Amino acid sequence: MHSRLSDWGDTIAAIATPPGIGAIGVIRISGDKSFDLVQQFFNSKNLKEQPGNTLHVGYLKDGEQILDEVVLSLFKSPHSYTGEDIIEISCHGSPFVQQQILNALIKNGARLARAGEFTQRAFLNKKMDLTKAEAVGDLIASNTRASQNAAIKNMRGGFAKVLHELREELIQFSSLIELELDFSEEDVEFADRQKFLNLVSKISQEINELKNSFALGNVIKNGISVAIVGKPNAGKSTLLNTLLNESRAIVSDIAGTTRDTIEEVINIKGILFRLIDTAGIRDHAQDEIETMGIERSKEKMMKADIVLYLYDVNEMKEKEVAEVVKSIGQFCSNLLVVGNKAEHQIANEPGLLKNHLYISAREKLGIKTVEDMLFKMAGGQALESENLIVTNARHYEALSEIAASLSEVNEALHQNISGDLLSVHLNRCLYYLGSITGEVTNEDRLDYIFSKFCIGK
Amino acid sequence: MHSRLSDWGDTIAAIATPPGIGAIGVIRISGDKSFDLVQQFFNSKNLKEQPGNTLHVGYLKDGEQILDEVVLSLFKSPHSYTGEDIIEISCHGSPFVQQQILNALIKNGARLARAGEFTQRAFLNKKMDLTKAEAVGDLIASNTRASQNAAIKNMRGGFAKVLHELREELIQFSSLIELELDFSEEDVEFADRQKFLNLVSKISQEINELKNSFALGNVIKNGISVAIVGKPNAGKSTLLNTLLNESRAIVSDIAGTTRDTIEEVINIKGILFRLIDTAGIRDHAQDEIETMGIERSKEKMMKADIVLYLYDVNEMKEKEVAEVVKSIGQFCSNLLVVGNKAEHQIANEPGLLKNHLYISAREKLGIKTVEDMLFKMAGGQALESENLIVTNARHYEALSEIAASLSEVNEALHQNISGDLLSVHLNRCLYYLGSITGEVTNEDRLDYIFSKFCIGK
Repeated sequence: MHSRLSDWGDTIAAIATPPGIGAIGVIRISGDKSFDLVQQFFNSKNLKEQPGNTLHVGYLKDGEQILDEVVLSLFKSPHSYTGEDIIEISCHGSPFVQQQILNALIKNGARLARAGEFTQRAFLNKKMDLTKAEAVGDLIASNTRASQNAAIKNMRGGFAKVLHELREELIQFSSLIELELDFSEEDVEFADRQKFLNLVSKISQEINELKNSFALGNVIKNGISVAIVGKPNAGKSTLLNTLLNESRAIVSDIAGTTRDTIEEVINIKGILFRLIDTAGIRDHAQDEIETMGIERSKEKMMKADIVLYLYDVNEMKEKEVAEVVKSIGQFCSNLLVVGNKAEHQIANEPGLLKNHLYISAREKLGIKTVEDMLFKMAGGQALESENLIVTNARHYEALSEIAASLSEVNEALHQNISGDLLSVHLNRCLYYLGSITGEVTNEDRLDYIFSKFCIGK
Repeated sequence: MHSRLSDWGDTIAAIATPPGIGAIGVIRISGDKSFDLVQQFFNSKNLKEQPGNTLHVGYLKDGEQILDEVVLSLFKSPHSYTGEDIIEISCHGSPFVQQQILNALIKNGARLARAGEFTQRAFLNKKMDLTKAEAVGDLIASNTRASQNAAIKNMRGGFAKVLHELREELIQFSSLIELELDFSEEDVEFADRQKFLNLVSKISQEINELKNSFALGNVIKNGISVAIVGKPNAGKSTLLNTLLNESRAIVSDIAGTTRDTIEEVINIKGILFRLIDTAGIRDHAQDEIETMGIERSKEKMMKADIVLYLYDVNEMKEKEVAEVVKSIGQFCSNLLVVGNKAEHQIANEPGLLKNHLYISAREKLGIKTVEDMLFKMAGGQALESENLIVTNARHYEALSEIAASLSEVNEALHQNISGDLLSVHLNRCLYYLGSITGEVTNEDRLDYIFSKFCIGK
């Protein structure tokens, strides 16, 4: 198998718009030969003589066969997405016509681009660091305001900048330590150990904050699951429908997503909450008649990130509720207790238990409070700060490695361990810091990262 | 309800790329306010000061909220698709991000474009005639080389040019007739009746040729259905699989089309043949054991454009075959008779009956001949000429009206009918000639035509 890196000088092409019929389809071509290649099909103008960042209308012809009337977007190296010469062909949105054009390009020397290869080239040509490249993929996959914001923040390089600065500071100390090693026979200390300890402690703190933000980052990217449980007549379906009516996720408007999944997704201030096994709640209500309505839901609850326990305030006393809550608490740490049919109580009054609310699902009283509480329990409040949020599992893994090596460094410093051992830990730390942004990297890792992109990006 | 025409001065916007996730999504904006509107979200440059046909990279911001990093394509009136100021926003292909951008545009004064409205504006601004506008829709829907070519031919205006010329010639005579009416008291004849008769006859011939081409045009656009029938062991499945392997329609490679339908479509030299009720052929073979294997397939055959009757040459004598063919002929005029398992005969030898071939489906002998015959029976040979082909049902209807009024004119001329009656028939003829290209038209009709387009076009 060819490596992705060894043949990145050739000219690649791919359909960049989604599959299916639309008004416009875009075919993207990048590489040294882009202009020569497209010129063979385009007679109206000499493309190389045109300035970059310009648009040109004309017919695309394969010999005598007219393929389509198109608009060409010309981008000249290095002022393009990949840093190479790029032409984007905007053609009519027939999948057949798009395929014909792509086939003609391939027949004449272009290679079909692999998933993410345009962005990989942008990285290799230093048009963006790895966190920005990954953010492009995240942005394409984003489906809420929160995931969009997190991706754009990374695209703009906030995360990369912080990491780069931390790494620079560490490198300074590291080089002092290396210097000591060169003069090891003379037993000098160029690097002030106390200053170094302070630095390591400061960096550790920042790394840990980033690492901890991943819990929310993960929620932003993948949503969070909520199991609504309770006795059959507690009003689960009514609550579910009320939540769906108020906050049904915008994804429901988008073609291509499955209706089955959509029906259970709500969007609260940019976080997607997946109301799991809703069908189960609706259809298997009979199964839950015995016990407190929780035995059968145990598995469901154990899988969920949050459990919402709903009860009828007219049916259950506080004491009874407290017992149920205690038993649920054994296998679920994130529990929201909601007393329903509480029209006659003040709906917004907080309950006696922890995370305890009163609502009337039917009268739509207190629903906003439920949403606010779910948002808070998902850690959503951190969204409202300007803090960086790590959304990428690869970054999280690297941050964990960095945190581990930093505590090794810390320990080594406290134990007054010699420079050469310190240097090992430091280098591991620097390696992982650099790996996030791509300052240090390896080929297989890169291939893996970009293979997760879509074709044409 | 607002008329489409009365509000075409406002600024419209739509997502022009297919729904779903891709690398790139395009949002198209057209109208006087396009530049002012997009400028509100784009800080990097003064857009109005940029020349037309240029590309500009930057962030799109709704207040403080960054929506995406985008590329803007600027087209200035009248040098654009619609003839109005157009901006195309090329953004990241997240349906969520696209929706956010579209929402922001609408919130700030754009109106969501109706289906086909961009092309309708192009027509109203005289950027294209109606046949070209319709050809754009056909091109987007095209799924074979033949339908692509027919659409492109119409986009380039061949059809419109022919009609325009015929109309001009008729108008000349028409105005002479009108002149006679002005001088009716003096009983003069400005229009030479013999010349006029010749012209009408010439035009009739051209109109009829165009009208007749619609049979093929319809085949090109909608494909043609073929029922493969015969006794259970004749080898229908083997033939079907061989045909599918050799000529499976390219549509099968395109996401979004249903697999059920695809499996039965083959593409022979640009025409789609739908092998109907294939499942029936495969699964219900048992039902056909009685009689000659045709009774049960009668309905299937009556619906099909072509019936392919397959038999085993080792099982049936020519005489028996001739009888079956005769009985099938009662309800099907387009019959192809194929003797299978004819390895030991010369596979390409023509049979004794009309449209009669020998093949071996298993040995793949004679399959090409079957394809050629199907192509010929579908009228495909006319594809290879440079003749215009009418693919649009609206055009066919108008051509029928034209043909009808021309024969009225012809009759009137032969009966020496007075100028004023002649003028009525002539005007009807001119009206329908003009209606095809949109030289004469009415608002409702236009609305109907463009409503069949996709949004964003």
